[in-house]
Amino acid sequence: MSEIKNPVLDAGQVAEQNAKVQANLQADYEALGGVLSRRGVDIDKLTALAATFAVALPSWAAGTGGTRFARFAGKGEPRGVFEKMEDCGVVHQLTRVTPAVSLHFPWDKTDDASALKEVANGYGLGFDAVNSNTFQDQVGQEHTYKYGSLSAQSGAARAQAVQHNIECIELGKKLGSKALTVWVGDGANFPGQNNLRGSLERYLDSMKDIYGALPDDWNVFIEHKLFEPAFYATVIADWGTSFAAAQQLGPKAKCLVDLGHHAPNTNIEMIVARLAQFGKLGGFHFNDSKYGDDDLDSGSINPFQLFLVFNELADAAERAKSDNSGFNPAYMLDQSHNVTDPIESLMSSAVEVQRAFIQAALVDRNALRAFQESNDVLQAAQTLKAAYRTDVSAILATARVRAGGAADPVAAYRASGYREKVTVARPPKAGASSSGIV
Amino acid sequence: MSEIKNPVLDAGQVAEQNAKVQANLQADYEALGGVLSRRGVDIDKLTALAATFAVALPSWAAGTGGTRFARFAGKGEPRGVFEKMEDCGVVHQLTRVTPAVSLHFPWDKTDDASALKEVANGYGLGFDAVNSNTFQDQVGQEHTYKYGSLSAQSGAARAQAVQHNIECIELGKKLGSKALTVWVGDGANFPGQNNLRGSLERYLDSMKDIYGALPDDWNVFIEHKLFEPAFYATVIADWGTSFAAAQQLGPKAKCLVDLGHHAPNTNIEMIVARLAQFGKLGGFHFNDSKYGDDDLDSGSINPFQLFLVFNELADAAERAKSDNSGFNPAYMLDQSHNVTDPIESLMSSAVEVQRAFIQAALVDRNALRAFQESNDVLQAAQTLKAAYRTDVSAILATARVRAGGAADPVAAYRASGYREKVTVARPPKAGASSSGIV
Amino acid sequence: MSEIKNPVLDAGQVAEQNAKVQANLQADYEALGGVLSRRGVDIDKLTALAATFAVALPSWAAGTGGTRFARFAGKGEPRGVFEKMEDCGVVHQLTRVTPAVSLHFPWDKTDDASALKEVANGYGLGFDAVNSNTFQDQVGQEHTYKYGSLSAQSGAARAQAVQHNIECIELGKKLGSKALTVWVGDGANFPGQNNLRGSLERYLDSMKDIYGALPDDWNVFIEHKLFEPAFYATVIADWGTSFAAAQQLGPKAKCLVDLGHHAPNTNIEMIVARLAQFGKLGGFHFNDSKYGDDDLDSGSINPFQLFLVFNELADAAERAKSDNSGFNPAYMLDQSHNVTDPIESLMSSAVEVQRAFIQAALVDRNALRAFQESNDVLQAAQTLKAAYRTDVSAILATARVRAGGAADPVAAYRASGYREKVTVARPPKAGASSSGIV
Amino acid sequence: MSEIKNPVLDAGQVAEQNAKVQANLQADYEALGGVLSRRGVDIDKLTALAATFAVALPSWAAGTGGTRFARFAGKGEPRGVFEKMEDCGVVHQLTRVTPAVSLHFPWDKTDDASALKEVANGYGLGFDAVNSNTFQDQVGQEHTYKYGSLSAQSGAARAQAVQHNIECIELGKKLGSKALTVWVGDGANFPGQNNLRGSLERYLDSMKDIYGALPDDWNVFIEHKLFEPAFYATVIADWGTSFAAAQQLGPKAKCLVDLGHHAPNTNIEMIVARLAQFGKLGGFHFNDSKYGDDDLDSGSINPFQLFLVFNELADAAERAKSDNSGFNPAYMLDQSHNVTDPIESLMSSAVEVQRAFIQAALVDRNALRAFQESNDVLQAAQTLKAAYRTDVSAILATARVRAGGAADPVAAYRASGYREKVTVARPPKAGASSSGIV
Repeated sequence: MSEIKNPVLDAGQVAEQNAKVQANLQADYEALGGVLSRRGVDIDKLTALAATFAVALPSWAAGTGGTRFARFAGKGEPRGVFEKMEDCGVVHQLTRVTPAVSLHFPWDKTDDASALKEVANGYGLGFDAVNSNTFQDQVGQEHTYKYGSLSAQSGAARAQAVQHNIECIELGKKLGSKALTVWVGDGANFPGQNNLRGSLERYLDSMKDIYGALPDDWNVFIEHKLFEPAFYATVIADWGTSFAAAQQLGPKAKCLVDLGHHAPNTNIEMIVARLAQFGKLGGFHFNDSKYGDDDLDSGSINPFQLFLVFNELADAAERAKSDNSGFNPAYMLDQSHNVTDPIESLMSSAVEVQRAFIQAALVDRNALRAFQESNDVLQAAQTLKAAYRTDVSAILATARVRAGGAADPVAAYRASGYREKVTVARPPKAGASSSGIV
Repeated sequence: MSEIKNPVLDAGQVAEQNAKVQANLQADYEALGGVLSRRGVDIDKLTALAATFAVALPSWAAGTGGTRFARFAGKGEPRGVFEKMEDCGVVHQLTRVTPAVSLHFPWDKTDDASALKEVANGYGLGFDAVNSNTFQDQVGQEHTYKYGSLSAQSGAARAQAVQHNIECIELGKKLGSKALTVWVGDGANFPGQNNLRGSLERYLDSMKDIYGALPDDWNVFIEHKLFEPAFYATVIADWGTSFAAAQQLGPKAKCLVDLGHHAPNTNIEMIVARLAQFGKLGGFHFNDSKYGDDDLDSGSINPFQLFLVFNELADAAERAKSDNSGFNPAYMLDQSHNVTDPIESLMSSAVEVQRAFIQAALVDRNALRAFQESNDVLQAAQTLKAAYRTDVSAILATARVRAGGAADPVAAYRASGYREKVTVARPPKAGASSSGIV
Repeated sequence: MSEIKNPVLDAGQVAEQNAKVQANLQADYEALGGVLSRRGVDIDKLTALAATFAVALPSWAAGTGGTRFARFAGKGEPRGVFEKMEDCGVVHQLTRVTPAVSLHFPWDKTDDASALKEVANGYGLGFDAVNSNTFQDQVGQEHTYKYGSLSAQSGAARAQAVQHNIECIELGKKLGSKALTVWVGDGANFPGQNNLRGSLERYLDSMKDIYGALPDDWNVFIEHKLFEPAFYATVIADWGTSFAAAQQLGPKAKCLVDLGHHAPNTNIEMIVARLAQFGKLGGFHFNDSKYGDDDLDSGSINPFQLFLVFNELADAAERAKSDNSGFNPAYMLDQSHNVTDPIESLMSSAVEVQRAFIQAALVDRNALRAFQESNDVLQAAQTLKAAYRTDVSAILATARVRAGGAADPVAAYRASGYREKVTVARPPKAGASSSGIV
Repeated sequence: MSEIKNPVLDAGQVAEQNAKVQANLQADYEALGGVLSRRGVDIDKLTALAATFAVALPSWAAGTGGTRFARFAGKGEPRGVFEKMEDCGVVHQLTRVTPAVSLHFPWDKTDDASALKEVANGYGLGFDAVNSNTFQDQVGQEHTYKYGSLSAQSGAARAQAVQHNIECIELGKKLGSKALTVWVGDGANFPGQNNLRGSLERYLDSMKDIYGALPDDWNVFIEHKLFEPAFYATVIADWGTSFAAAQQLGPKAKCLVDLGHHAPNTNIEMIVARLAQFGKLGGFHFNDSKYGDDDLDSGSINPFQLFLVFNELADAAERAKSDNSGFNPAYMLDQSHNVTDPIESLMSSAVEVQRAFIQAALVDRNALRAFQESNDVLQAAQTLKAAYRTDVSAILATARVRAGGAADPVAAYRASGYREKVTVARPPKAGASSSGIV
């Protein structure tokens, strides 16, 4: 059970909320336990497994996101990294599955890393991968990234971008992070704008300098994206390029899969299988999408796809176990909350990812293997479906309650009055951006 | 309970299979009943509702499908319309949700309609919409459809295609059908091949002649498809064209939505809502797909999308109830079974569609409406998810058993030895096509 | 020849630039004239036709665009509607194909419409369709559009949005506009957020009020868009919905086709043909795209598609001529210039659209018709290709020079030093947004 | 000039056809020569360059293709490999750019390779890469490929597929081929059908055996395809998998890019750049498409994309020249001719590919580089466009005439009466398949 020394919300109030639904939850849990036992599955083992799951929170998702057209600000938005940590603290206190936060620099830059670390630890939070930002120009920045950063024609812009990434590593070291995630928007809006190969060559040169600055126990995650902000050609556009780049750089370089960064119709779970097979699966940015990089809440559009991703992860984990090769990809949410309370979306999304993890654990892998080996296609497919169809809500709720969290995180959060409180405590900064930048 | 005078499989054997799983099913049903009652839902009402559901079978899907590259024939494939009815009889006997078959002419042409009807009725089967075929040339056919049928430049080809459709209506009348489904592959492979507007004008002219031959109580369903077999421009390519054409023709003309016939990323449930709003939703061809018109088993790739379609149908039905406008779209499976036993795929797909119907019935519409009205986006979304996540398998199985079907249709089918029997009884015809035509 | 009373750039300098390239242009023109005459085409007729072409400029495209991630401002950006008109004046002076500007309110709101009109007229510019903006909240606005505007649940938000559109009409009347373009971002990010049908019903109710405020000689253009800013369901998402809505509203309501607002793989030229056939083609927003609504320069990604659109327009115009039905769709650029000088992109894009217009005029329609009628597919396709492959650059340049414009607009613009001049004259406003809103 | 000892068509008749258009061609050529010289380009050098271009023909494309719905046979279709060579001989005689044919086994299997070679050589034809076929079951074949070939669960099916590939190499050796192209349809139609990683592991094992049988001077080309015939997951679905597989196998393994085998919106020219950069670009299957693997005529849908692919090839060739690394990818057409005379489509497609090659050669690479280095995005884009817009038809026609081919291949072919002749000489085989297999 994760201990939280300094909970953001009153623990007694959470317990009170839980008490209200406890009888029903218990009854649902027992009903599900019966169903599972008739299938030969022990519900308590699953609940224990659920308690081991963790997914990191992105600090920037605590604020309201937007689009290039508009951003409709929410109430009581965090105005700095400490307030972001507070909001993430709420998420973790109620869900108990988000024990780490991923910071984004310079947005989350702080002069007092140890104070930040202490505050975070009080909320039960550590620090996941740090993220660099060379897709925007910052006030006072010497060289523009308008025409690229790590791949820019301008050597000065490239050097500046490399230096920024190295500073991110330095900050991350102070906070206890173990990885740097690099996503660049570099690319072209017109055929001819860039020499396609030259751009990647410059990117690799820059990345070699960043790679060289990594501590021994760090990884660098390369995040690809099909398009946006570049609309004709993106330097790191697909997993093939990400994979080739990671190979060029060395063993500490791995590929990060963001669920929304692929071409239409792409089989994402197969990319997961491929990267796992070739030893380059670094981690995930979870979200969902229907059209492009929509950054919608995880599992809100295509929950079966999320399950299939975790089915591959379960397969990879089982293989790694059998050959002791180690398999420990990083999990993080990466969403844009444009019309919901970010805390509510983060809580329900974290639970949704955990749900897929538990559903995948329900797959009868021996039966599946046997059906595959005998080309019993229908039953192989049904084996996955049987696991996916199981409503494991009671398992997840029970795991939360047992860990000190909330049976119903959204209800508990609303009952706490937290949003109303911070709405008063955090008046918007004058001149706050109304842009859609997330 | 639907009565089957002449069941294909031994009813006693089905009952025997059911008996084996009855205790577990009963326990699962009670467990689910408890969960639902704690949400204020009466499980028996849902089970009764499930028993009202019906989806028609496509006669052609009883055979193994293929692609342009190959067809890998299955064993004991039906060699004519009577054997297809027999296979469909198995599907209906075990699932009790497929009481009608949709025929395709000239494939299913028969000289003795009354014999066919009698045999079908014995299996508990009636006849749904009849389908015309002007996307292939038949042996001995005078005019080719290589360059189009209802929209062809050749007036003779158009007249021949119109005449064929009228013959389909005549055959359908004898069988008790009440609708004609028209899908044409007409279109172009090259820019310039056809005058895009001229093609649709000719199509409409031809359809007016067919429309004129419809009995008073018949409908004609216009089925659109983005592409294939035409690869640059298809005459009836999207719902907008289908809708405009149905308007031009009159009230008996309605639009048919095949789940696999849309551009990537299309929001299909919104098309359902639009056609319902404007009074032109004729019916469905259910299947699933990931890339194009893949014709995969219903719900096998994106089950949440299937649920969202039924959520719109539930909304439309509720509206129709409140204003007595009538809402009764036709439901049919339309799948290509390339690697599974067609009977097994049809059974599990029919159940999958029924599952979505019941999950949609579980949506708390009053709560949903209230959340929508107050812009409580997260809870509105969760209201749908709560219904979708419910594993209603025990309801569907119980409804089947109560109606005389099988608790586990695939298991009962395998236990019956039916496929082995017809493998012997139906040796492949000499010179049977190995093409992928489905 | 369009007269410009008050040219922005020095006319003598433009003439000087033209003089430098005149000999080469003349030689290229004669060479092309010979090639065309050998095909039976009179080059001077084409040049005269080119001079009749016009496409409107969007006022907002005079500034640098961006994405949700960042906007990298350009130099000397216009800070108000008068400076935007000045930039548009440069575009028209050099290209002579952009004699009107489309304004966007409240961005371009002015208290002195007659002064604006006078200044614009001096540049040879009139006013095309006016655009309303209910996809952003403005400072001091009473009701938010966060959850929709014309389709919002909130009656107050709907009324406010209707009122804004009526004010746009009033402003447009003062300026001499004859149409209102309505694009709303209304939609949902989650399944369940909106009742899909209810949203469209409310939209139609609102639009009826706006429609009622249209002067007799005005049109309203309904602009559809597949997605963004709504990422699950957009109220006016496709041409089918746009078409149905235009039908519901009446004859003054027509559909506007933005080339970037469609699902992947959509055959846009066929949508043009359909809307023309059913009398609802209102006009165009020209741009190009590869992934989504990329808003790239017209013809920069898929120039053949732009040609095929104009091929349909030429077909529709020919039909309208033969039956005197009138066919006069509105043409406008709508692009986001993120990495180029907006004036340069507007000039080259306007020329690119004009190029497609002239290439389409080169299609031998009698030959095409004959090939189509005889199903000579290859030669029908080659007939289009022969027209498309013709490099009509010398025709376009000659038409410009004859009308008083520049042989090479970009070269003439660069030689004028205009950007350097306005960079000094237009220091950025303090606190100028760095958002990507375009 | 390529010599053809035994031309299929009467050479005098071709010359006669050329004579009819010679004056116009000469005039067009001179006009274009003037235009190019004013840009500093020597037309004769381009014409000489055009004469060096070659693209191989796929033997199977000499017949009419089809879809899973139907195949509408053409007249006088070749009934065996010798007749296919004859048709290919016509294509090469008239275009002079298709001096090699790519065979497909077992379709083109022959017992007398030396006779085939001699006949082909008489037509001026050699043999390009040989293709294996394990996506269909052949009559009398022991193990089915229904559930996969090189990746099948069945070891016997895998061994059979490996053996077939080795036989293809043996046949290719006799004919003078230097490469084997391996495309498999292996994959799954259902989630769960295959273990995604296990399938690729088995594929790689099989490929290692095939790789081991390659002669020293051979390559094996791995061809990826997003989907079809497998509709959920394809073993070699994208360039990333193809690339990883080629790396695992060794230096003789390279990747083949088929223009139609990618996800919607994919930037194919960037894949070309990536594979060239990492030394794994083996070659191309040229065709065009709008929706899926449409196999339409090269350049018929998106000619600018074809140009951009050749722009990358020109860049790669220039780089290889400067570092003497060698760059010699294999070019082949791979199209399905469903509604045109295959010979006409092959001729015009070969010319279309050659056109893109010459247009790419027209790009002013020094100017492009300079614009790229100075971030002059607009002029960089215009530099590509200026080359692409040039109508090089007269260059291609002149190159053909100078090499002994036809100024207008389609006109010459039609004048020859070849199709009419073979229609008589090649009555359809009894029981000929009407399937859409191509």
